[in-house]
Amino acid sequence: MNSQPATLNDIIAAIRPADTTWLEKAKARTQRLVMPTRALGRLHEITEKLCAIRSSLTPETGRKAVLIFAGDHGVVAEGVSAYPQEVTGAMIATFLSGGAAINAFCRHVNAEVNVVDMGIVAQLDLATLPKGGKGLWIHKLGAGTANFTKGPAMSRADAAKAVTIGFQLAGTLFDSGIDMLGTGDMGIGNTTASAAVGVALTGTGIADMVGRGTGVDDQGLGRKQEAVARALGVNRPDPHDALDVLAKVGGFEIGGIAGAVLAGAFYRRPVVIDGFISTAGALIAQGLCPHVTDYLFAGHCSEEKGHGAMLERLNLLPILDLGMRLGEGSGGALAMDIIAAAARMFTEMATFEEARVPDKG
Amino acid sequence: MNSQPATLNDIIAAIRPADTTWLEKAKARTQRLVMPTRALGRLHEITEKLCAIRSSLTPETGRKAVLIFAGDHGVVAEGVSAYPQEVTGAMIATFLSGGAAINAFCRHVNAEVNVVDMGIVAQLDLATLPKGGKGLWIHKLGAGTANFTKGPAMSRADAAKAVTIGFQLAGTLFDSGIDMLGTGDMGIGNTTASAAVGVALTGTGIADMVGRGTGVDDQGLGRKQEAVARALGVNRPDPHDALDVLAKVGGFEIGGIAGAVLAGAFYRRPVVIDGFISTAGALIAQGLCPHVTDYLFAGHCSEEKGHGAMLERLNLLPILDLGMRLGEGSGGALAMDIIAAAARMFTEMATFEEARVPDKG
Repeated sequence: MNSQPATLNDIIAAIRPADTTWLEKAKARTQRLVMPTRALGRLHEITEKLCAIRSSLTPETGRKAVLIFAGDHGVVAEGVSAYPQEVTGAMIATFLSGGAAINAFCRHVNAEVNVVDMGIVAQLDLATLPKGGKGLWIHKLGAGTANFTKGPAMSRADAAKAVTIGFQLAGTLFDSGIDMLGTGDMGIGNTTASAAVGVALTGTGIADMVGRGTGVDDQGLGRKQEAVARALGVNRPDPHDALDVLAKVGGFEIGGIAGAVLAGAFYRRPVVIDGFISTAGALIAQGLCPHVTDYLFAGHCSEEKGHGAMLERLNLLPILDLGMRLGEGSGGALAMDIIAAAARMFTEMATFEEARVPDKG
Repeated sequence: MNSQPATLNDIIAAIRPADTTWLEKAKARTQRLVMPTRALGRLHEITEKLCAIRSSLTPETGRKAVLIFAGDHGVVAEGVSAYPQEVTGAMIATFLSGGAAINAFCRHVNAEVNVVDMGIVAQLDLATLPKGGKGLWIHKLGAGTANFTKGPAMSRADAAKAVTIGFQLAGTLFDSGIDMLGTGDMGIGNTTASAAVGVALTGTGIADMVGRGTGVDDQGLGRKQEAVARALGVNRPDPHDALDVLAKVGGFEIGGIAGAVLAGAFYRRPVVIDGFISTAGALIAQGLCPHVTDYLFAGHCSEEKGHGAMLERLNLLPILDLGMRLGEGSGGALAMDIIAAAARMFTEMATFEEARVPDKG
């Protein structure tokens, strides 16, 4: 267990790169496992990264959790989503009752589901929520962000708070013994904010970064692109200052995800990001501290247009590519199971010597 | 439970296409699940295919098995593999002791591992094998196939026998309650035979179909390509007669896999094929009975060169693409877990109505 640093700067200062000597030790073990040289391809890269993260040749993956960050977005006033804003709160209730896709996946991969309200419009009443709100944290930074086509989404102080809250909650999970954390998201309008973050931090053009999200039509897509263009024009976020980008065109939940990513690096545990929104959060974290990518896995490649460019910026290859675009942490949850399977392979397989199988002649 | 037909022709005659009315029923349910329209992409195609296979909206995936078909290949005399032939028998012992990659993966996804000696060179002694040979069937059709650069790999009668044995063993597993079967392979030289089958049945050129298998160098690759060219020239397999292709340039285990694929279609249970060798088996099965593809999932895209062309011929999209090239059923085993997760999502998720979440405006 680690004592948690007090400020964002303390967190960032405490983060170190993963220990590459363990990469080499892991590669040496892979070489001895009873199979043709590196015949399991990317699974070896996964297990070796895991060993470097945990400084161990027996990295644990048994205890898994997904942490869903929920937030609402003022930019929905611009008509950027096909769904009404009350869906955000209703879906939180669905997560708690176990009826969402992420719940089914987490039951399958044996991961706990936790949710945090970082600032949705609805006022949730714990007493009337399923299971009395068990599994839900409330850390509201506002009733949704401000409409960032007219000014910053939030103050710089709130942006720092969002990241710190995400760091602390993920830290609580790691302190409780979680070996691997998946990040998830919920919030109507959040692909618009994530696209704005993506354009600001990767330099990709708006046409290549803004996609259809939950499924807007051509007109809705036009409105999204225009909203992102206006947001960037009005706010002029500084690409060299990730907190500035988060404050001006991000979202409360995107900041929370950035904090969870920092926590993985601080606690030296793997964090598996999900799709477009989680990756926007990871880009913010990378901007704050480039070492975080040593501790990150990209769960999948989203169907959302600009996701590939974001992953490239993080220098991460997605584990799955199944045309998913749901969010909630769904792709990350499935990928956690592939990572766990790879870890079992690495730790449980016999060596050529143990199996008495002749190696290559 | 079904009574098993006696001959290969009876098997083929009894196979019907999957019931597409269940595809439609499944699509209707997907539409009502509490998420944006088809937001889980290919997972919906997977669950809908599963519903059509099982004629059910609650397709079971709980009981899983992998059946590894082992066989040796006379073509190894041409210097086509980096490994000595005794590896085949030694790996069977490793499968039984639980030390191979496929064992770790099957423990992770909760699948049983079964092995069948379809005709390896070594004479296995059940008494000296791990667990007294439990989990191993012996149905030897010979001490490896003949060197198919000089004549047919096996007789047409043995080819039919190989397919029938595979059908019967897979049928035994389905009769015992297995919901989903993964096919696996073991046999030094088997990528050479599979490439020959692939060229014969897809029409792909030798340079694009023959790969490095377990890792031969440039000279070894040249010898493999030459061996396949000679095999096809000497034997002239008839691409419109899959049993002829199997007999002339296939392998005992490839025939067994073809039989297991037929069994999936006959028993109406999903079969998940693994990589290059399993897919060669599936191509043989498709040649015998085109309906089999309705019951097939492609577990992954192998790193082996010609695999993509084979999958295209089967009109199957791979579920995973992780640069794996091990065989044993390893990619199929991991994919079975994704299929099972998708099935849980489909059966366990709440509808918009149940969750009282507002749908798209």
